[in-house]
Amino acid sequence: MDGEKLSVEAGKPIVCKAAVAREAGEPLVMEEIMVAPPGHHEVRVRIICTTLCHSDVTFWKMKDYPSCFSKNIWSRGYRLSSNYGLTPACFHFLERVVESVGEDVDEVVEGDVVIPVFLPECGDCADCKSKKSNLCSKFPFEPTPWMPGDETSRFTDLKGEVLYHFLYVSSFSEYTVLNIANIVKIDPSIPPSRACLLSCGVSTGVGAAWKTANVEAGSTVAIFGLGSIGLAVAEGSRICGATKIIGVDVNQEKFELGKKFGITDFVNVGECGDKPVSQVINEMTGGGADFCFECVGLASLMEQAYASCRKGWGKTIILGVEKPGSQITFQCSDVVLGGRTLMGSLFGGLKAKSDIPILLKRYMDKELELDKFVTHEVSFEDINKAFDLLLEGKSIRCVIWMDK
Amino acid sequence: MDGEKLSVEAGKPIVCKAAVAREAGEPLVMEEIMVAPPGHHEVRVRIICTTLCHSDVTFWKMKDYPSCFSKNIWSRGYRLSSNYGLTPACFHFLERVVESVGEDVDEVVEGDVVIPVFLPECGDCADCKSKKSNLCSKFPFEPTPWMPGDETSRFTDLKGEVLYHFLYVSSFSEYTVLNIANIVKIDPSIPPSRACLLSCGVSTGVGAAWKTANVEAGSTVAIFGLGSIGLAVAEGSRICGATKIIGVDVNQEKFELGKKFGITDFVNVGECGDKPVSQVINEMTGGGADFCFECVGLASLMEQAYASCRKGWGKTIILGVEKPGSQITFQCSDVVLGGRTLMGSLFGGLKAKSDIPILLKRYMDKELELDKFVTHEVSFEDINKAFDLLLEGKSIRCVIWMDK
Repeated sequence: MDGEKLSVEAGKPIVCKAAVAREAGEPLVMEEIMVAPPGHHEVRVRIICTTLCHSDVTFWKMKDYPSCFSKNIWSRGYRLSSNYGLTPACFHFLERVVESVGEDVDEVVEGDVVIPVFLPECGDCADCKSKKSNLCSKFPFEPTPWMPGDETSRFTDLKGEVLYHFLYVSSFSEYTVLNIANIVKIDPSIPPSRACLLSCGVSTGVGAAWKTANVEAGSTVAIFGLGSIGLAVAEGSRICGATKIIGVDVNQEKFELGKKFGITDFVNVGECGDKPVSQVINEMTGGGADFCFECVGLASLMEQAYASCRKGWGKTIILGVEKPGSQITFQCSDVVLGGRTLMGSLFGGLKAKSDIPILLKRYMDKELELDKFVTHEVSFEDINKAFDLLLEGKSIRCVIWMDK
Repeated sequence: MDGEKLSVEAGKPIVCKAAVAREAGEPLVMEEIMVAPPGHHEVRVRIICTTLCHSDVTFWKMKDYPSCFSKNIWSRGYRLSSNYGLTPACFHFLERVVESVGEDVDEVVEGDVVIPVFLPECGDCADCKSKKSNLCSKFPFEPTPWMPGDETSRFTDLKGEVLYHFLYVSSFSEYTVLNIANIVKIDPSIPPSRACLLSCGVSTGVGAAWKTANVEAGSTVAIFGLGSIGLAVAEGSRICGATKIIGVDVNQEKFELGKKFGITDFVNVGECGDKPVSQVINEMTGGGADFCFECVGLASLMEQAYASCRKGWGKTIILGVEKPGSQITFQCSDVVLGGRTLMGSLFGGLKAKSDIPILLKRYMDKELELDKFVTHEVSFEDINKAFDLLLEGKSIRCVIWMDK
């Protein structure tokens, strides 16, 4: 497809279908919307397929953005309340064929295949130039309703009302506009329904094991929460050669499911009796797991994860996002005397433009097993079914096809 | 000196001088005591010189051991209260010439020169065999009043009353008994008054920069608390090539002192006005220090240290020991979204038997500057002066010579 000219509308707005969140928590509404041409350092892309994760659902339900994420929004007087017209994100999606490119874009040309990532990588700031950080400081992670580094939207409805972006990568639309900091060019031979998984959740989990924790061969891992992120941590740990991978969840059924992703042992939190989970894991592992991952976003579980990791060398990695204002507390003596490490991990510590191609190669080499994450597929018209499946806990990943 | 026979009393108790803490917080009393011969895996050594650090003073003042450190003591009904006869530690001391060795000791022979370390290294447990941990699990760190792995003392007074050990390495006595897990054999040509510094505080600080944090050349460091541990962190950071080393203290005079140890910048906590220290450091460093070290043992300062380190890659290392039961609290969102690392460091992450010889070599190679840590020297008879100097903040390290 490279080089194929699709930009019949280049330089002009495109009218296309989009799924718009008109009311918080209410089904998305299929509408025709107007997508502006790409600006400086931007591309406009046609979406082939997309998917959604719990973060989409969390924000979709929210009447207001959490203030901790959007100080600049509140302080400047914008308010996204119940009547907002947010085009919800979908962190994960594949846009096949760049439709047109804006000024000063040399990373891709029309017809290239890209996946977007919610965490920008400008390539120029101290963080992007460092091997140690994936937190771009030019475009810091914030769920603003705008394009990165900007306070404008590329979406309007046909009445001229502005529709908002979500985390820079709104994809519940046939066309969208992205900053080049948010795209990764990929090999067009990779199946779109697999590549799109690496835009967010699966990368987050696999990356947390591979990049943030650097899980070692032969090590012991405990994963708190076996949702799709936790399963992706298991998959990453399996690839890294962990030999004991303990899943921790309240749902016993997750054990059977987890086995496909490398889970070898299971702790049902509801069946620990009077023992804290950390004590159970300490007993199972002879002193604690080498690596603990919190994938739920629950402060008490983060504390349990920390207490479950091995003194001397254990690492606890926090992936779950708690509600704004929540705190975790540790005994000072445990911190100084325990020799443990606590780390946060956003997008699995991955630097999108360099690390996602590595993950895709490992998929093509049949090491990273992406197929098992896709449990459902729906057409764009049925996007609300994808929300239902996730809410009911029935899907791991539901791929949403734009043209089926 | 190797091979010199000094064990005229080998196999029998030795009567010698010791400084005994008879009342918490009261001057030590010079007495004659009885030191038993070494048991299995033990050596008896003649002390050449010793020193003391704040931990000695903290415990000396304490009417009771903190329960968090000594659960096994409380649970077994021992109680070290105001009338205890503890021989206070001295984590740091050099014993020249092993006087005699017990059974199954092949690591040293009579006449060898050793320094003791409070953190045991048995060499056999999973931690000692791992490169990643320095927290021996055979002899876990606990301020018990006994020999490691044992519930007996090697000290009695001349009335036959038991005198207690402190952290396995009591050295305020002309002779002491040590488990071989607590000794490091050293080159006898190294000056005793310099080697003894590496038994505790200086190693802790230098090791925290070198081993725990792995401070990189060109990096930015912030050190909270410029006591001897903080100054040792500065020295370690200087050796590692840090280019900006910020001292944080309430005492402006520490800046001039700190410059000798590599401190390049200073933040007087008392002069920050309404700004939190972390904000001042964030402004000074363009977003936070690469490495922050808390060396005071104050929960609020630990939290400030964490907030002072660079998002994306900053590491905060906790060295300071807070009072039992104290807690530190973080915003969950800061942990997961900030990409920072929090680590505890006991004895600077050093594995005594392998790492102290490296530090001593760096001293002999004139890289590690130990001389500047020694501000005072006193005779054993004047040991209480060493306490006064430390309490008054006048000394960094005061060497106590046993035979002068």
